[in-house]
Amino acid sequence: MANLQDVAKAAGVSKTTVSRFLNGSLELPDRTVQQIETAIRALNYVPNPHARRLSLGRSDTVALVVPDIATPFFATFVSAVEEAADARGLTLALHATLNRSRREMKYLDFIAHGHADGLIFVTNHASDAAVAAKINAAGRCVVVDEDVVGAEVPKLFCDNLQGGALAGRHLAEAGHRHVLFVGGVEEMISGARRYQGFRRGFEQCAGPQARIDRICGQYTYEAGHAAARRFLQSDPRPTAIFASSDELAIGTLEVLREAGVSVPREVSLIGFDDVGPLHLFAPAITAVRQPVRDLGRRALELVFDSDWKDREKLHSEELLPVRLIARESVAPPIRTT
Amino acid sequence: MANLQDVAKAAGVSKTTVSRFLNGSLELPDRTVQQIETAIRALNYVPNPHARRLSLGRSDTVALVVPDIATPFFATFVSAVEEAADARGLTLALHATLNRSRREMKYLDFIAHGHADGLIFVTNHASDAAVAAKINAAGRCVVVDEDVVGAEVPKLFCDNLQGGALAGRHLAEAGHRHVLFVGGVEEMISGARRYQGFRRGFEQCAGPQARIDRICGQYTYEAGHAAARRFLQSDPRPTAIFASSDELAIGTLEVLREAGVSVPREVSLIGFDDVGPLHLFAPAITAVRQPVRDLGRRALELVFDSDWKDREKLHSEELLPVRLIARESVAPPIRTT
Repeated sequence: MANLQDVAKAAGVSKTTVSRFLNGSLELPDRTVQQIETAIRALNYVPNPHARRLSLGRSDTVALVVPDIATPFFATFVSAVEEAADARGLTLALHATLNRSRREMKYLDFIAHGHADGLIFVTNHASDAAVAAKINAAGRCVVVDEDVVGAEVPKLFCDNLQGGALAGRHLAEAGHRHVLFVGGVEEMISGARRYQGFRRGFEQCAGPQARIDRICGQYTYEAGHAAARRFLQSDPRPTAIFASSDELAIGTLEVLREAGVSVPREVSLIGFDDVGPLHLFAPAITAVRQPVRDLGRRALELVFDSDWKDREKLHSEELLPVRLIARESVAPPIRTT
Repeated sequence: MANLQDVAKAAGVSKTTVSRFLNGSLELPDRTVQQIETAIRALNYVPNPHARRLSLGRSDTVALVVPDIATPFFATFVSAVEEAADARGLTLALHATLNRSRREMKYLDFIAHGHADGLIFVTNHASDAAVAAKINAAGRCVVVDEDVVGAEVPKLFCDNLQGGALAGRHLAEAGHRHVLFVGGVEEMISGARRYQGFRRGFEQCAGPQARIDRICGQYTYEAGHAAARRFLQSDPRPTAIFASSDELAIGTLEVLREAGVSVPREVSLIGFDDVGPLHLFAPAITAVRQPVRDLGRRALELVFDSDWKDREKLHSEELLPVRLIARESVAPPIRTT
């Protein structure tokens, strides 16, 4: 493979000239530029990016750390960041942590010392002081989707409070008074805020008869299965379920189907995220839609448009609005009393 | 931040000793090892991975290049590779090319000179000699899912021929004689082989009356929409559609729904991939299921278990079996003649 020396020789200039030209620290006459570029093309020379990073301290790379990309939400989010990175001519290095702290720390180390130009960090478990410390040390890092308490960086979330309230009001307006909230743990802002908004929206509209049962866990199919099984055993049964992620809604629906419980005739169901093809389900599922692609685009903007020198103003929180997509899975409850 | 010099000083040894110890080229007495490790911990020293890579030529990193991870198929595939990498203690660097050659070349350059231990490459467009050349130059590279003609490396695909045949036989056995194949272009092995298998399976079973219409394009929702619109305008209409990816099946179903065409009463539908939640659709969609997680696991094994010194045996092709999941979207055709 051709090296810098070969390029220099073919272009008739010194190795230092080529090197400084390539790292942008030397202006050259057009003719010399042309000679170097011709030599690079002719020899198919590719600068070693590690050597280049060592000398430049930058890489034109954005790193993105997500828990797991097998869910439609994260897959779509990553795809939006990739589109935005492509538009800026950046390469994207993606790392999936499987939502394990150990793996998060490993990738944060990897990145903090890897001279990426910026980092978008997404976790899906309760905060961890060690992770926060590493994020603060990582430089240009933006926290998205779930909070990392103690990380003093720009943060970007969907408006979980508003989303919960939309779901709560929708169920109350359909006539429900006893409902089940299935969601994340209280220690995560999505879990806490979706519940807080849901309670507020539901109680304001349903009045003193309002009763909310709550099951907390992970945003997984398995947690949806478990919640639906607990629902089936409850007495009296709530007349509606707010399953606050696509996975929870799908998991819940699977168990209800198997048990022969009809949605929405016997129980209403409302989801959150609305990334999967919920509109094709039987019945089509009503859900709060997250602006997933907007989250991806905005996250990359925050990496590049934030003033990273002003540490005081850096610690900010931005919320993107959500909306309710009404379909066929919510109906008035059957009156049993 | 502590540097190598600080560690050497604290441990009471020379900088060269620490450096050679860290890159594994120097055996030291236990006591000295302990002194260095204590100093590293006390100073929270982290070796610069770029410098380390330059000296070692390896990185404990596997690179994975995929077209787009927003589809459930690729998202699940990536997640399986991540699990397998985690089990081997490897970090994974993911790159999404948006299925654009320019971006594929960029990431292949990036990786070829980045000293990743191995590379899993997935494209979703017809082959390109320049891409093949770069793959051959990249070292330990495995091609998965779609072929790159000219790449002389281990290749791993699902058994597209078998999958097509399963779908063709299933439709013929249900009584269909005029069917529509919606699939990838002939220049891609998935497009060519799924069609070839489909034709063979269908014709063998349906006999001389067999008629297959064919629409080729990309594996996207939009292509599914376009194919379904052409289907609606065709006269006579085929009585069944084989939409040979999840996206094509979903896109097709969306347009049929909108047009009020009932599946399977007016037209039968069979999909391919079966990664999305097709079992919850109305109707639940019959599909050929790809072993996506097995593809991910096996791809990583091939990177590490292939004999990369024996270039002659390297160029191999391995197929993983698929199976048909029969649900509710295929029924006998309405007899109009």
